[in-house]
Amino acid sequence: MSITGRDDGSPGPDRISYAMVGGGQGAFIGAVHRLAARLDDEFALVAGALSSEPERAVASARALGIAPDRSYASWQELIERESARPDKVEAIAIVTPNHVHYAPAKAALEAGFHVICDKPMTTTLEEARSLAETVKRTGRLFILTHNYTAYPMIRHARAMVAAGELGRLRVVQVEYAQGWLATPLEGTGHKQADWRTDPKRSGAGGSVGDIGTHAFNLASFVSGLNATSLCADLSIFVEGRRLDDNANVLLRFEGGATGMLWASQVAIGNENRLVLRLYGEKGGLSWSQEQPNDLHWSPLGEATRLITRGTAHANAAAARLTRIPSGHPEGYLEGFANLYGEAARAIRAARTGSAPDAEVLYPTVEDGVRGVAFIEAAVASSAKGGVWVPL
Amino acid sequence: MSITGRDDGSPGPDRISYAMVGGGQGAFIGAVHRLAARLDDEFALVAGALSSEPERAVASARALGIAPDRSYASWQELIERESARPDKVEAIAIVTPNHVHYAPAKAALEAGFHVICDKPMTTTLEEARSLAETVKRTGRLFILTHNYTAYPMIRHARAMVAAGELGRLRVVQVEYAQGWLATPLEGTGHKQADWRTDPKRSGAGGSVGDIGTHAFNLASFVSGLNATSLCADLSIFVEGRRLDDNANVLLRFEGGATGMLWASQVAIGNENRLVLRLYGEKGGLSWSQEQPNDLHWSPLGEATRLITRGTAHANAAAARLTRIPSGHPEGYLEGFANLYGEAARAIRAARTGSAPDAEVLYPTVEDGVRGVAFIEAAVASSAKGGVWVPL
Amino acid sequence: MSITGRDDGSPGPDRISYAMVGGGQGAFIGAVHRLAARLDDEFALVAGALSSEPERAVASARALGIAPDRSYASWQELIERESARPDKVEAIAIVTPNHVHYAPAKAALEAGFHVICDKPMTTTLEEARSLAETVKRTGRLFILTHNYTAYPMIRHARAMVAAGELGRLRVVQVEYAQGWLATPLEGTGHKQADWRTDPKRSGAGGSVGDIGTHAFNLASFVSGLNATSLCADLSIFVEGRRLDDNANVLLRFEGGATGMLWASQVAIGNENRLVLRLYGEKGGLSWSQEQPNDLHWSPLGEATRLITRGTAHANAAAARLTRIPSGHPEGYLEGFANLYGEAARAIRAARTGSAPDAEVLYPTVEDGVRGVAFIEAAVASSAKGGVWVPL
Amino acid sequence: MSITGRDDGSPGPDRISYAMVGGGQGAFIGAVHRLAARLDDEFALVAGALSSEPERAVASARALGIAPDRSYASWQELIERESARPDKVEAIAIVTPNHVHYAPAKAALEAGFHVICDKPMTTTLEEARSLAETVKRTGRLFILTHNYTAYPMIRHARAMVAAGELGRLRVVQVEYAQGWLATPLEGTGHKQADWRTDPKRSGAGGSVGDIGTHAFNLASFVSGLNATSLCADLSIFVEGRRLDDNANVLLRFEGGATGMLWASQVAIGNENRLVLRLYGEKGGLSWSQEQPNDLHWSPLGEATRLITRGTAHANAAAARLTRIPSGHPEGYLEGFANLYGEAARAIRAARTGSAPDAEVLYPTVEDGVRGVAFIEAAVASSAKGGVWVPL
Repeated sequence: MSITGRDDGSPGPDRISYAMVGGGQGAFIGAVHRLAARLDDEFALVAGALSSEPERAVASARALGIAPDRSYASWQELIERESARPDKVEAIAIVTPNHVHYAPAKAALEAGFHVICDKPMTTTLEEARSLAETVKRTGRLFILTHNYTAYPMIRHARAMVAAGELGRLRVVQVEYAQGWLATPLEGTGHKQADWRTDPKRSGAGGSVGDIGTHAFNLASFVSGLNATSLCADLSIFVEGRRLDDNANVLLRFEGGATGMLWASQVAIGNENRLVLRLYGEKGGLSWSQEQPNDLHWSPLGEATRLITRGTAHANAAAARLTRIPSGHPEGYLEGFANLYGEAARAIRAARTGSAPDAEVLYPTVEDGVRGVAFIEAAVASSAKGGVWVPL
Repeated sequence: MSITGRDDGSPGPDRISYAMVGGGQGAFIGAVHRLAARLDDEFALVAGALSSEPERAVASARALGIAPDRSYASWQELIERESARPDKVEAIAIVTPNHVHYAPAKAALEAGFHVICDKPMTTTLEEARSLAETVKRTGRLFILTHNYTAYPMIRHARAMVAAGELGRLRVVQVEYAQGWLATPLEGTGHKQADWRTDPKRSGAGGSVGDIGTHAFNLASFVSGLNATSLCADLSIFVEGRRLDDNANVLLRFEGGATGMLWASQVAIGNENRLVLRLYGEKGGLSWSQEQPNDLHWSPLGEATRLITRGTAHANAAAARLTRIPSGHPEGYLEGFANLYGEAARAIRAARTGSAPDAEVLYPTVEDGVRGVAFIEAAVASSAKGGVWVPL
Repeated sequence: MSITGRDDGSPGPDRISYAMVGGGQGAFIGAVHRLAARLDDEFALVAGALSSEPERAVASARALGIAPDRSYASWQELIERESARPDKVEAIAIVTPNHVHYAPAKAALEAGFHVICDKPMTTTLEEARSLAETVKRTGRLFILTHNYTAYPMIRHARAMVAAGELGRLRVVQVEYAQGWLATPLEGTGHKQADWRTDPKRSGAGGSVGDIGTHAFNLASFVSGLNATSLCADLSIFVEGRRLDDNANVLLRFEGGATGMLWASQVAIGNENRLVLRLYGEKGGLSWSQEQPNDLHWSPLGEATRLITRGTAHANAAAARLTRIPSGHPEGYLEGFANLYGEAARAIRAARTGSAPDAEVLYPTVEDGVRGVAFIEAAVASSAKGGVWVPL
Repeated sequence: MSITGRDDGSPGPDRISYAMVGGGQGAFIGAVHRLAARLDDEFALVAGALSSEPERAVASARALGIAPDRSYASWQELIERESARPDKVEAIAIVTPNHVHYAPAKAALEAGFHVICDKPMTTTLEEARSLAETVKRTGRLFILTHNYTAYPMIRHARAMVAAGELGRLRVVQVEYAQGWLATPLEGTGHKQADWRTDPKRSGAGGSVGDIGTHAFNLASFVSGLNATSLCADLSIFVEGRRLDDNANVLLRFEGGATGMLWASQVAIGNENRLVLRLYGEKGGLSWSQEQPNDLHWSPLGEATRLITRGTAHANAAAARLTRIPSGHPEGYLEGFANLYGEAARAIRAARTGSAPDAEVLYPTVEDGVRGVAFIEAAVASSAKGGVWVPL
C-alpha cells in the first residue's frame, strides 16, 4: 500500500485538557466528540457536567475516568470551579441539545475558556449575535462542530474552488437526506427524536436546523460564497410533529450563483446522505458524505476524474488531514477528529498568543451566526408562504 | 440467462405506415424516432417532409428508402397529398424544433391522421390548449414523446405508487442535469445548440423547456400527482445566451406532497442525468436514466432492494415492456421504442374503433398542455423574482 | 444534449437479404439477432428454416413476414432452394443450439453464402478446424457473434491497448457470472436450461462453453493477446446436472501476461456480469457489460478517469459504433446491432471483391476455433484434476 | 439520525497496559495499531522497543508519552525488564516486518505476556507451528491482526453463513488488488516497498504473503471453510523484483466448494480493493473493503438487498461492533479498533481465568499457521509450474 498518510502524531504528555457539558450515558453526539478528541491523542477529558440528572452525571464521569471532584452537577458549577483551579481545563466542549448551547458557551468564554460547540449554535439569532460579540471581546477560540468541513476531500474541493479551478461558480446543489423520522418516533420514548422535534429544545427549525444547517454550512465552506437570500418551503409530514421534517429551499449566492438545498428526515432509504455538487465555468465537483474518500471532478470537456483520499492526486489541503493510505477508508469519526485536530492546532497557537497556520480551518462563531440566520430565514420564508428573504 | 423477455413481436406485413415531418440529415431526434419505430418492426416510414431545405429533404428521403413521390417539400404538402392517397399513412411523426410542432400537428389531426409529436408540445399555452381541443374534437390519437415514461422500471415504479406501496406521497425530487451548454456553443454553428437556445424556435423556456418538461412530466407520470403551483428561479449563466440554462424550481402537488425540480444545461460532468426520487409514508424509490434497468426500493424499516428489469421481481407493468434478459442492459432507444410500441397498440385498437388495453400508456395532449403550462409558469415566476404561480 | 452520434445510417432500399436457421417462436437468441439486424436497417430477413417443428416454422415465418415459399422445413432445404433462386439471400444467420452450427454453416459456405453464426462455433475442435478450412477455401465471410466485442467502449479499450497506452500487459482478469442455473431448472421444462445443460446439444462445456467462451474471446479481443495455456477447475454444483455450472480457470498469455477467468451460472445475484480488467505497465482498464457505456481508465500515478460513450473523450474506435449522445445509455441490443453493422460493411465490401476498411472488426472463424479449443482444453484440464494444458 | 450505535464504551481508569515492538517513527502499521488501540480507550501504551535504531526509538517513545525508563533498546530487553516490573504490561503488540514476528512473539508468550501480532505470522511454517505450540503450552492469548475480520458487515456475513442462510457454499471468490508496486518502488528508498519485497524480511511470499494472506484468511473467516488444496501461478512483473507481485490462485475447500484468489500489487488503479463474494445454494453475498459499511445480499429468486451497518437490518454480530449511526461511514481504523476491542474483551476475561463470551472473535495462532501454510503452498505450487498442493 502507498504510505502517504501522516503518522498518528501522538503529542505525548502535552495534551489539551478539556471538559464536556452534556454527553452523558445515552447521549449520541457527546460520545462522538470524545471519540474524535481521542483519536489523535491531542486531548484529555478531565472534567464534565455530563448530565442534568445527578446519577447519570456521576456514572458517566466514572465510566470515562473523570475524577469525582471534577464531575460537576451543572455547567455553572463546572465553569465556576474549574476557573478556580490552577490546573483548569483549557477548553470546554458543549454537546447539549441546542437550547443549552448559548448560556454555557457564553459563560465559558467569559471565564476565559476556549469553546468547542455543537451545531446549530443557538436557538435564536439574537443569542447567536451575542455569542459572536462575546467571542470577539474575549478573544477566546470558538469552534463550531460542522464536522463535515474537515473531511479531506471536502478540503480538496474547497482548495480547488479557491484556486479558481472551477472558474466562477454558477450552481450549488446541496442536500442532506435522512429517513429516520418518517414515523412519529418522538412519541415512542426515543430520546434523540424527542428533543430534535421539540421547539423548546431545538429552536424554530426541525430538519432545516438539525441537518439543513450542516448542508448550508458545507455549501458555503466549499464554495467560498455566502448565500444572500433564500426561498423556503418547509413541511411537517408526520402528523402531530411540531417542527418541519422536510425543507425545500432555493438559494442565491453573492456573485450570481444560485442553488438548491434539500433537507429531509422523512426520505425513507436515506441514512446520512449529505451530497454537495458545485458547477462553475470550468468544471463540476460532486461529493457524498456516505463515500467521503471520493471526489468526482469533471473538468470542462474532459473525462470525469475520481480523486481519492490518500493518493498523489489529492492536494495538500486534503493530505494534511489524511492518516492512512488510499483505499483504506476513513470515515465520519476521522472527519470529526480532523476538526478536533484543527481545534488543537488553534489552541496550541493561542497558548503562545499567535494565530494558527493559515491552513488551519474550522467553522467559527460567524459561521454559527450565519447558520442560525439561515434557520430563521427559512422558517420566516415558509411561514409567509414561500417568499424570498434576505440573509 | 433467464429468458424472461418477450420475443421480438414482429408484426409481419401488417405494419403501421407513417410519415415524418422534420428529421432530415443532421437532425438528432428524428433519427431517434426512426430507430425507435423500427426496433419492433411495427412501423414503416413511407413518406416525409424531412427538411425545409429541398436538397436535404430529397437526399434524406432517398437515404431512408422513401419513394420520391412521397418525399414532400413541406408539411403542408405532405398532409395535403397524403390525404388524397388511398394508401395514405396512418400516422405522422412531428420531430421539428418546437415552433413547428403546433401547426403541422393541428393540420394532421384535422386531416384525420394520428400524431406522434416531440416535446415540448408547443411554444405557447394558447396553442397547447388549441391542440387539446383539436384532439378531443377529431378523436385522433396524439402521442407526446416524453420517452422516459416508457422505461420498464419507470413503469414498475408507477405501478408501485398506484398500488399504494409507498403510501401517501410526501416528497418528489426530480432533476435533469446536463453540461453540454456550459459554453456559448450556439455561437459556433452547432445546430442543436442554435435552435434550443433561440426563443423563436424553442419558445420561452431554455433548459426548463428542453429538459425541465421531461423531468416535470416524469414526476407526474410516476407519482400520479399533478403539481398545483411552483416557484422558479431561472438563470442565464452563459453570456449572450437568450434563454435560461439553469432552472431551480420548488413544486407543490395535489394532496400535500412537495418537491424540487432542477434542470440545468451548464452542470459540467452531467450528461443526461435525469433522476427521480419519490418518498411516501411507507417507502422511497430512486431511479436514474443513466442506469435505467435499476430501481432502488426502500421499504420503511427494511433494507433497500435493487429491483432490476427482466427479473421475477420486476412487476407486470415492467415486464410487458421488456425484451431481453436481466443483466443485458436495455437503454434509451429501447425505452423510446417502447413508447412507439404503445403508440402502435393504440393505433391498432383505433383501427377497430376500440380503446387499447388499460395497461397501454403514453403521454397525451393533456400532458402536453401541462408541460407548456409548466414552462410558462416557471418563466413567469422567475420574471417576477421567484414567486409562487399556480399551475 | 451533445449530438455526437452518427445518424441512423439508414441504407434505404439496398438492404442485405438474409435467411435464418433456427430462431423460431420461443427461441431467445434468434429474436436478438433479428432485433440487432433490424436496428440499423441494413438487413432484410426474407427466408428461414426457423424451426425443426413444421408448425412452429410456418407460424414463425408468417409472424416475421417471410413469404411462405421461403419458409423452409430444414436448413438443408433452405440452402438448396435459396441457392437456386436468382434473388437468393446473401447471408445466412445460424442461431440454433450449438450442435446444429457446424453442418449448416459448412453447407452454407460451400453453397456460396456468407455466414453469421452464434457461439460457441461448434461442439468439437475437429469441426471447428474443418469450418476454418471451409471458410478459407470458399472465401466466404464468417462472422461469429461474440457480440460483446462490438460495444463501443470495448472498442475504445482495444484501441488503447493496441496503441500501447497500457504498455506491456501483465494481468488479465475476466469473469462472466450468472445465477440463473443455481437450481435444477433443466428439469422443469425450461427450454433454454434444457439444451444448455445437455452435452448432446451444447457440447462438452456447460458454463465454460456458454459464457466462458464469451469471456475468453473478449479478453483476447481487447488485450490483443492469445492465451497459450490454461489450468481449469470445473464443477457441477447442481445435483443431476450433466455439464459444468462453474469454471475457475488460470490463464497464461503470449508475452508473459497471466490471467484468471471465472464463468459461473450458479452465482446467485449475478445476471450477466461480464467484467474485464486489464493491467499493463502504464495503466489499468475496467469494464462491465452491465454498465457498458462506461470505461474506467487508471493511468499510472494519476486519478482514474471515467470515459463514457458518446463524448469527446471517447476515441474514434468507439465513436464509429455510437448512435446517440452520452448519458443516453446504449445497451445489449445496440452492441449486438454493431456487430451486424460490421457484418454489413464486410458484406458490402465483398460485393465488390474488396476487403472492408481496416477498422471493421468482427470475431472470425479463427476466433471460433480458439473458442472451441478453449472449451476442450478446459474440460481436459479439469478432467485430469486441474493440470496445465496448452492452447 | 438513528442512534443505534453503542456509546464509546470508555473503560475509565481500568485500561489494559501494553507495549509495542516496532512501530517507531516512519513506520506504517505501528501507527495504525496505536490509533486502533486508542479509539475505544481500552488500552494504554506504556512501554516499547519501537525501533532498532536507538535514536529513533527514543524519539518515538518521547512523542508517544512513553516514560524513558520503559523505552527499550530491543525487544529482548523489553521482555526481560518488563517481566521484572510489578506493573508490567499485560500485552505486547508486535508490529515489525515479518521476519521479526516469531522470536519476540515466542519470547513474550514464554514470559507470560499476551501477544497481538501483525500478519503474516511468521516467515516459515516451521516457526508458525512452533508458535502455535507455544501458545497452547503457555495458555497466553495470541491475536493475529487480520483486521478485516472485524468489520461489522464481515461479521454480519459470517453470521449469515453460519446460520445456514446461504445453504451449502459452492463458490468463494476473493481478491485483494493494489497498484502501488507497479513500478520498482523498492529501488527508490521507499521503506515500505523495501522490506515488503525483500525475501529476508518478508519471507517467501510477496503479494501472496502481504495481501494474499488477508484475502485467504477473510475467505475462511466468513465462509467457515478451510481450503484443502490450491494451485498457484505467481509472477514477478517488475524487473529486478525478488518476490511475486501478482498471484493467481485456484482453491478447493472442504465440503466441495471451489474458489479463486487473486492478489496483486501491480493492478494500477486499485488501492486496497479487497473483495469477497460467496455463493451458496440459497443466495450470494458480496462485500468490498473500500465500501465496508455495505453488504449486498442476494437471496435466491429475490431482489438483491443492500444491508448497511448501523441499521435495524444489520444483525447482532454486526451491531456489537458498531459505534455510530448508519450513513455515517466507519472505516479501516474502526475495523482495526474492533479487533483491538475483541482483544480487550479476551484479555479482561483472561484476567479472571475465564474465556470471553462466545461472540468474541479474533484470528488466532491457528489461523496464523494456516496463513503461512497458504504462502508456502502457493510458492511451492507455482515453483512446480502450477500444480495442486494440499494445505
